[in-house]
Amino acid sequence: MNPSSIAVPLKVAVRDAAIAELKALLGDRLSTATAVREQHGKDESYHASVPPDAVAFARTTDEVCAIVKICARHKMPVIPYGTGTSLEGHIAALYGGLSLDMSQMNHVIEVNAADLDCRIEPGVTRKQLNEYLRDTGLFFPIDPGADASLGGMVATRASGTNAVRYGTMRDNVLALTVVLADGRVIRTAKRARKSSAGYDLTRLFVGSEGTLGVITEITLRLYGIPAAINSATYSFPTVADAVNMVIQAIQSEIPVARLELADDVQMDAINRYSKMNLPVLPTLWIEFHGTEASIAEQAKLIEEIALEHGGSDFRLVDTPEERKRLWQARHDAAYANKALRPGAHIWATDVCVPISRLAECIAETQKDIRESFLPAPIVGHVGDGNFHLTIVLHPDDPKEVAEGNRLNDRLVARALAMDGTCTGEHGIGYGKLDFLVAEHGEAVSVMRQIKKALDPDNIMNPGKIVRV
Amino acid sequence: MNPSSIAVPLKVAVRDAAIAELKALLGDRLSTATAVREQHGKDESYHASVPPDAVAFARTTDEVCAIVKICARHKMPVIPYGTGTSLEGHIAALYGGLSLDMSQMNHVIEVNAADLDCRIEPGVTRKQLNEYLRDTGLFFPIDPGADASLGGMVATRASGTNAVRYGTMRDNVLALTVVLADGRVIRTAKRARKSSAGYDLTRLFVGSEGTLGVITEITLRLYGIPAAINSATYSFPTVADAVNMVIQAIQSEIPVARLELADDVQMDAINRYSKMNLPVLPTLWIEFHGTEASIAEQAKLIEEIALEHGGSDFRLVDTPEERKRLWQARHDAAYANKALRPGAHIWATDVCVPISRLAECIAETQKDIRESFLPAPIVGHVGDGNFHLTIVLHPDDPKEVAEGNRLNDRLVARALAMDGTCTGEHGIGYGKLDFLVAEHGEAVSVMRQIKKALDPDNIMNPGKIVRV
Repeated sequence: MNPSSIAVPLKVAVRDAAIAELKALLGDRLSTATAVREQHGKDESYHASVPPDAVAFARTTDEVCAIVKICARHKMPVIPYGTGTSLEGHIAALYGGLSLDMSQMNHVIEVNAADLDCRIEPGVTRKQLNEYLRDTGLFFPIDPGADASLGGMVATRASGTNAVRYGTMRDNVLALTVVLADGRVIRTAKRARKSSAGYDLTRLFVGSEGTLGVITEITLRLYGIPAAINSATYSFPTVADAVNMVIQAIQSEIPVARLELADDVQMDAINRYSKMNLPVLPTLWIEFHGTEASIAEQAKLIEEIALEHGGSDFRLVDTPEERKRLWQARHDAAYANKALRPGAHIWATDVCVPISRLAECIAETQKDIRESFLPAPIVGHVGDGNFHLTIVLHPDDPKEVAEGNRLNDRLVARALAMDGTCTGEHGIGYGKLDFLVAEHGEAVSVMRQIKKALDPDNIMNPGKIVRV
Repeated sequence: MNPSSIAVPLKVAVRDAAIAELKALLGDRLSTATAVREQHGKDESYHASVPPDAVAFARTTDEVCAIVKICARHKMPVIPYGTGTSLEGHIAALYGGLSLDMSQMNHVIEVNAADLDCRIEPGVTRKQLNEYLRDTGLFFPIDPGADASLGGMVATRASGTNAVRYGTMRDNVLALTVVLADGRVIRTAKRARKSSAGYDLTRLFVGSEGTLGVITEITLRLYGIPAAINSATYSFPTVADAVNMVIQAIQSEIPVARLELADDVQMDAINRYSKMNLPVLPTLWIEFHGTEASIAEQAKLIEEIALEHGGSDFRLVDTPEERKRLWQARHDAAYANKALRPGAHIWATDVCVPISRLAECIAETQKDIRESFLPAPIVGHVGDGNFHLTIVLHPDDPKEVAEGNRLNDRLVARALAMDGTCTGEHGIGYGKLDFLVAEHGEAVSVMRQIKKALDPDNIMNPGKIVRV
């Protein structure tokens, strides 16, 4: 979407008065430098940069509270910022305002090993957390491609390759501390594993994309590092064969940890970018977690099912180094695609459908791609029914953007007709506002009521998720 | 809590006008008979009956919509009713109004076996659903003690004995159709396994106890019936030994399906009521789901850990009949306790704490019980940190009620101090309004804002969860 059609700058007097107060509070940690502002208005998508008026670097919940109160008094927008790796323009300052950079709030506050949980600040990234946990025997499984901040991952309800077994951010947040639009500070839950005490505010803020408040602390579930891990790749004659194999594996309740698909185009891009030598065929990337005995059993069951569906070229990866290299290549798929066309950007679509419709949804989408002039590899978390068409395009070429829109529109309409969603894990930002309405209908009016109740002046990341 | 101190009857003119319109709509399916009203004002707890003014038996979403619109026009409270098995006075008509009985909306609409999901009406009970699914190879795992309606289970965010492995209602609802206070009908989500499309309305309505709208359709996750199942009981010298064994099992990521605890008093009550002959010692009830090989491995690992913690008298139950009998006895624990004192009621407490604090929490609670004159067996979903003290008392004896309050107050305060919750799975109803405030503090103001935004006239189950 072209932000210029909706972006509205903040009134100069408002902006200057608010910035003066923020400067007094934060000193050097309030920046209005052009480079800093531009970097904070641009995520990893094709969406253009819409820079904020200023960028604040917060260090504590109290400080976030003071910042939000200043902005609330001036009705200046507040846009929480993690690592800038979102994909639907989540951080674009459509109405000007303050980008609230949380990267300095990056401390692991406590790890409760006996309870398999931890409390962290929102600027901690997923790799940083797992590095910190390394000696505890625990890990946090949710892994979007980028090394995103956990705060951003909460805000977009992120998932990644481990969701088949470990769920998404929805399932792995125990509690949040949130600063609301009026400066109230709440903690959404205690540290118990489950609770029936009132409305599920934790889940309300997970996926709220900064539109309801600023997340300043996160309590996460952790998991014991499996005693044994094996990864494998399997090639298939067609995507449909691979998907049908996945359906059967899921139905058989084989507790696979990861079940990822890449089509032949994607495999070629990965081979080039990550210097791999994998077959250029539709490929499933699988990982088994468990005891030695249980992963051997899982691998055997999966191999039987794969064979039934024409699987070939089984490659078992069982050293940690090889495994790390394999999954890094998978995580770098987006960058591999970007490298297909020098200077191009990526437009990562994100539909998710009931798994019984997945083969059909992908097949019809591949037909669209064959008829398009843009390259668009397919990669997906097929165990969840979620896949990405990564359209590689030049965002300043209107013809390419029009074609990107056409492909994405058709894909989303197809997914919704199959009772699927327009976004499995990227979120709405401002890129999918209309799709949200197409998907949810009247339910969007409820989202709008909640937004208005909690943020009547519309200062929290305005223009994202719902139009008010 | 004594409802007479808060119950306020509806004005007669309002009541009569609304009932006349409802009668015209529903005919025989609108009852004002005393016996029907009294039955609909009383759940399975010690809370006194507060009968509604009338009871409606709805058959379709459209009909619910018409009923709610009539009530909204007259500002007559609407109290959704499932099977009446709640435990905190959820269905008491504190402000008069209409009990909306959903038991005739009890159809399984569709089962999507390939997607492991189904769509049902809210009056379907958990046993009815599993009976329906029997020939599909699928099952729905969430099992509170009572044969509750799925609508009620959604509304209270219920769980039960399988939550260690399968999660709670929070984790197993894919989408809901809800009639809101103003008659709008929304569907909260599509049927995709995951989505980042906007606020998580599904999770907002799960656990909302009828205070935000009436649930009229539910899409649930299902699971393949495990290839192999084994159950076992293990006795321990002390509750602390049993709990410490559980902590170690959870930390070792052994994928046990059920991990239940009963103390010696509870075991004695179960033996009497269910004619069992189990050792009268702190006992863990365990169930393994998986393949033959994996459950054998799990059982072996569990046995090793149990031995380390003084476990004895291992009893493996491996025929379906024996297993059914064992778990029926576990599910009937509440009824077994009720039978300890003729004419008595049960007051089931419901705290849930981080598992590292569980042994300490139970030990301090047992000290309280030893010093009390009321019997109070302990049973718990210890894999989640959740346990129930079932206080057996005569609710019309003020001395006993005062003692019940004293024990429960101390228990909840203890759990909150340990970063736990006042309710793991029963909900707030009107019995725990003050505890909700103690637990959530400022966050309750956010719950109140949401309630007011979606139900400004406070007609949806008023007086439950939050005071407005």
